[in-house]
Amino acid sequence: MGFSHFKDGKAIMVDVSEKENTTRVAIACGSIEVNLKTMDLISNGEVKKGDVLGVARVAAIMASKKTHELIPMCHPLLLTGADIEFQIDEKNLIIYTTATVKTTGQTGVEMEALQMVSTALLTIYDMCKAIDKEMIINRIYLKEKTGGKSGKFINSKI
Amino acid sequence: MGFSHFKDGKAIMVDVSEKENTTRVAIACGSIEVNLKTMDLISNGEVKKGDVLGVARVAAIMASKKTHELIPMCHPLLLTGADIEFQIDEKNLIIYTTATVKTTGQTGVEMEALQMVSTALLTIYDMCKAIDKEMIINRIYLKEKTGGKSGKFINSKI
Amino acid sequence: MGFSHFKDGKAIMVDVSEKENTTRVAIACGSIEVNLKTMDLISNGEVKKGDVLGVARVAAIMASKKTHELIPMCHPLLLTGADIEFQIDEKNLIIYTTATVKTTGQTGVEMEALQMVSTALLTIYDMCKAIDKEMIINRIYLKEKTGGKSGKFINSKI
Amino acid sequence: MGFSHFKDGKAIMVDVSEKENTTRVAIACGSIEVNLKTMDLISNGEVKKGDVLGVARVAAIMASKKTHELIPMCHPLLLTGADIEFQIDEKNLIIYTTATVKTTGQTGVEMEALQMVSTALLTIYDMCKAIDKEMIINRIYLKEKTGGKSGKFINSKI
Amino acid sequence: MGFSHFKDGKAIMVDVSEKENTTRVAIACGSIEVNLKTMDLISNGEVKKGDVLGVARVAAIMASKKTHELIPMCHPLLLTGADIEFQIDEKNLIIYTTATVKTTGQTGVEMEALQMVSTALLTIYDMCKAIDKEMIINRIYLKEKTGGKSGKFINSKI
Amino acid sequence: MGFSHFKDGKAIMVDVSEKENTTRVAIACGSIEVNLKTMDLISNGEVKKGDVLGVARVAAIMASKKTHELIPMCHPLLLTGADIEFQIDEKNLIIYTTATVKTTGQTGVEMEALQMVSTALLTIYDMCKAIDKEMIINRIYLKEKTGGKSGKFINSKI
Repeated sequence: MGFSHFKDGKAIMVDVSEKENTTRVAIACGSIEVNLKTMDLISNGEVKKGDVLGVARVAAIMASKKTHELIPMCHPLLLTGADIEFQIDEKNLIIYTTATVKTTGQTGVEMEALQMVSTALLTIYDMCKAIDKEMIINRIYLKEKTGGKSGKFINSKI
Repeated sequence: MGFSHFKDGKAIMVDVSEKENTTRVAIACGSIEVNLKTMDLISNGEVKKGDVLGVARVAAIMASKKTHELIPMCHPLLLTGADIEFQIDEKNLIIYTTATVKTTGQTGVEMEALQMVSTALLTIYDMCKAIDKEMIINRIYLKEKTGGKSGKFINSKI
Repeated sequence: MGFSHFKDGKAIMVDVSEKENTTRVAIACGSIEVNLKTMDLISNGEVKKGDVLGVARVAAIMASKKTHELIPMCHPLLLTGADIEFQIDEKNLIIYTTATVKTTGQTGVEMEALQMVSTALLTIYDMCKAIDKEMIINRIYLKEKTGGKSGKFINSKI
Repeated sequence: MGFSHFKDGKAIMVDVSEKENTTRVAIACGSIEVNLKTMDLISNGEVKKGDVLGVARVAAIMASKKTHELIPMCHPLLLTGADIEFQIDEKNLIIYTTATVKTTGQTGVEMEALQMVSTALLTIYDMCKAIDKEMIINRIYLKEKTGGKSGKFINSKI
Repeated sequence: MGFSHFKDGKAIMVDVSEKENTTRVAIACGSIEVNLKTMDLISNGEVKKGDVLGVARVAAIMASKKTHELIPMCHPLLLTGADIEFQIDEKNLIIYTTATVKTTGQTGVEMEALQMVSTALLTIYDMCKAIDKEMIINRIYLKEKTGGKSGKFINSKI
Repeated sequence: MGFSHFKDGKAIMVDVSEKENTTRVAIACGSIEVNLKTMDLISNGEVKKGDVLGVARVAAIMASKKTHELIPMCHPLLLTGADIEFQIDEKNLIIYTTATVKTTGQTGVEMEALQMVSTALLTIYDMCKAIDKEMIINRIYLKEKTGGKSGKFINSKI
């Protein structure tokens, strides 16, 4: 089996006309390592904490709707829900994020969930980079997906 | 020192009106871990190889111009150059990417370079996900930047 | 009852997966107060009149399709119709506008109709601001909507 | 004097090539009337309050960068700062907003400031419409502008 | 019969709410005349050839998803497939292109196919214009369409 | 001499950091062949005529600002003026269009002028396609450009 995104070695937007309209959900994760000062400002400064992650949340939800504009072979989709959460690990100086996207459509929303995670983490980077330019974004992956012909997928590596 | 992206705890697009117009360059890196089958298809199938990374390259360059639409507090900038390269580590099943962005402006292009890396890696994921959904995107970071008041930055963690 | 756009106090794009696909219509209104000179140029100069309102009409229709890019928690929708009209009250120096949007989907088009009204009025402002910078945009509201679980809504305040 | 946005009665993007690059600032205002229940939820529920206005703030800042995509004859500009504030009048059930935009360029940022106000108010409408569909957006206007050949403008009507 | 895109002489986005959801396909064509040097570089330099047409292909597929943002009265649609091919006529110094777009929706995809052709040819122009500014884009037309009430259309002029 | 848009056979956004900021103008042309009925409706129905070409004019001006989003290797630019005209040749059933774009920047606006022509003609096609699907878009080319290191270019083929 080869790449479905190619026909005779040339990139195409795969024909999904015959696929069924089903409810599809995808969940993606990722994290960013920050330094002590950034972590303090994010987790102790209540208002500010709300704001950094609050801005990242809005950015991620808005980015979910732009996925097909960014990823060339992605189909446009009518998202029916998008949600993102953050977990702060103060001890290890890591912020984790998990995004969940839903649609009723002919193709899945993996890329939308991954796009949300990526945009949330880049937004955190942007808002904190005056303090720390050495943050590292790490381990962006698809956690699970449901719906569609291939059924439920759960990432076995994690 | 606190976050410059906040004024009284509220998010703003920082006022850079007084900053100088200088030539600014930023270089960012990242990678994706793939499985053996995906690596074979990418690195042995010449045409296809060209295409997966070729499509990722175009996606990344186009995304550099969309950075301020995605990252809420990012200033719009006139990019004067954008370039992205890929290195394939067949043995360890990793594809590395490095993006370089240039501008002449009042603020830096770190986010544009990071956005390029992120979009290139997500595009690789998208085009290979029919074969492997367990790819992991890893270690997205700013490698260096020049220009602007703060001078040259080289990431000391890498 | 609280806000549906929040989950545990955090913003989400509300899950509408279980909602029915029905035909939905929304009608929104708004107005702009202009000065005598602007009103004369708009209403007496036939070609020009056509153009100011003609450009505002095109801007409004194009903006209806951008609503989900602007309003963070708005779902993307497939609009099936969009229409905007203007009424000129020369005596009171007011231009009124009414926008009607249709879709067949899982959520309503109130925001699309309001976005059209807002964009039409801002476009009129832009095209006339060389003559008058003191125009005031007034009373943008949802007039009525039909379709969806909540049935017909008619604004009781107007 | 006629409309500068027309040449022989036809719409154009006005030629500003000969205008000077100066620092330009514009401030715009607007308001939304809400009902008692919505006001309570916004002003008493601390977290939620933060979120409704926090989301509206991010939406407004992102919309400032999209102004030239929405208003047909608007020139693209490199915004160098954008900021928006809210004042809550609990007694009269009104939320006021004031947006300030800066650029160094050949044309002013009035439309960007007005676009921010409009988008902030529409976002508040969107997030509260499950509770109250009869909110009214009111009195969107340019408060003042500085920079450019015409010098300082202060709205005399308010 | 007059224009369906007008109501009382004013532009509207035509109401298609009552139209059926059917599978619709459109195929459009176009060409660009280049000079000998450009043709040599495109058709003999293997890697480069791949790249010029490869970049044009990605640009065209991405543009198909932007059609409703560019053509004012176009409805947004969920494209289910998009594909573009190039034929090189070395002797006559012409590059031909054919784009095929699919959707399941209430209105056709003619404009999306024409948009793809147009964007592919403009991208070729952009990438080769350092060598030859006198390329001519020629004969962009709809070749055929199927689906929808009007049934199959085959262009009789070609 | 090879393609400047490639480095080692790979697409890049060419580095223009060292280029001078000069005033640059580009003029592009194109045409569309229509049938008798379409021509009658466009040229005799005054209001409608205004509208078809009026909508095409707005679409073209808005598209000029989207050029760098559509053509992958195009630099973003601050357009300082955009203008488009139509000439109707009733006898030969052809509508001609000419677009003029200006900027003060480090790279030219050929692509913006060509994008305007292309979008204007596609918009005419869209608005008339209910009457005639066999219109042909023809001869899109750069007529002249000024500014920049290479000086004045006048197309010798026309």
